[in-house]
Amino acid sequence: MKIKRKGILFVISAPSGAGKTTLCREAANRLDNLEFSISYTTRPPRPGEENGRDYHFVDEETFLEMVEKGEMAEWARVYNHLYGTPKAPLLKAIEAGKDILLDIDIQGASQIKAAFPEDAVTIFVFPPSLEALRERLSKRGADAPQVIKERWEKAEEEMAMYPLFRYFVVNDRLEEAIEDLIAVIKAERHRVERIKETQW
Amino acid sequence: MKIKRKGILFVISAPSGAGKTTLCREAANRLDNLEFSISYTTRPPRPGEENGRDYHFVDEETFLEMVEKGEMAEWARVYNHLYGTPKAPLLKAIEAGKDILLDIDIQGASQIKAAFPEDAVTIFVFPPSLEALRERLSKRGADAPQVIKERWEKAEEEMAMYPLFRYFVVNDRLEEAIEDLIAVIKAERHRVERIKETQW
Repeated sequence: MKIKRKGILFVISAPSGAGKTTLCREAANRLDNLEFSISYTTRPPRPGEENGRDYHFVDEETFLEMVEKGEMAEWARVYNHLYGTPKAPLLKAIEAGKDILLDIDIQGASQIKAAFPEDAVTIFVFPPSLEALRERLSKRGADAPQVIKERWEKAEEEMAMYPLFRYFVVNDRLEEAIEDLIAVIKAERHRVERIKETQW
Repeated sequence: MKIKRKGILFVISAPSGAGKTTLCREAANRLDNLEFSISYTTRPPRPGEENGRDYHFVDEETFLEMVEKGEMAEWARVYNHLYGTPKAPLLKAIEAGKDILLDIDIQGASQIKAAFPEDAVTIFVFPPSLEALRERLSKRGADAPQVIKERWEKAEEEMAMYPLFRYFVVNDRLEEAIEDLIAVIKAERHRVERIKETQW
């Protein structure tokens, strides 16, 4: 038996410091048919970053034109730069039965969910503990106590947003967390509502 | 971080001959906190069957009294005997955060889903192919062609019911099917809506 299905947008968010990036990378490495979404940004590339691999680097005019045309599924201004995800490649992936992983902030996650209520699956990553989170936030370079305090308050706010998500993963033991994330992806691939066609 | 959650009822159905029983047994063996639901029946025990392990064996009067009192979450008459699942142990398991596996027919599955719309997760098992199904149905002893034909028609009818279920598993390669079933169970355990309490 063969089943054709729609593609799925896996949207993964976490308070900063929860260790989401490693988790996403490992899951993508171990699974077939799962690609990272590449964001658009107006910030200049850092050394080693490649256009089309790390980001699509565009100027502000191009970016804002995309926003005006309604082409962005989600976007935000972070400090002085714009970041966003265009709709077109997501729609194309859904149609083609390909799955996309979006490693994205919490605001972005709810915009994607609103734009793709059926096809987006949201996953929230919890840090192992509040102490671990506090530690990670303060270890990010030699920052002033005020900066660390602000970061912590932001993380606390973000933590309170988990009820907006469909799934949670606790990033306590890394291997277990990866397996949980993979289980969520595999399970969503086996939802009857995504079946487009069954072939016998 | 510790999370307390509600228990889940995993309701697994398949057309007869799809190979569901092995699948269920393996999943239950490999996972913690997952117990088989034990049905009530009015049919007499077969040699080797144990009351309270294979079934709860009761007389028809006791069974029908349970039905009248609304104590059965699902029940059916199959040929001359009654089979059913009482509500009370299911409610208790949900409350206690324990998961239950119900290996049950398609009618029963939709009754359970109706009785526990939030806490029941329905899974449909597809046979690997129509030929494999046909083969399995005809190999069950030396039956008359008419009996095999009826069995096949019933299986076809049952197969058409899959859109009523939330998940599907294709029982093609056994190991893969077991892993898919386990992924569904793990993923449902990580749904945010089942969180009762988070402890830090």
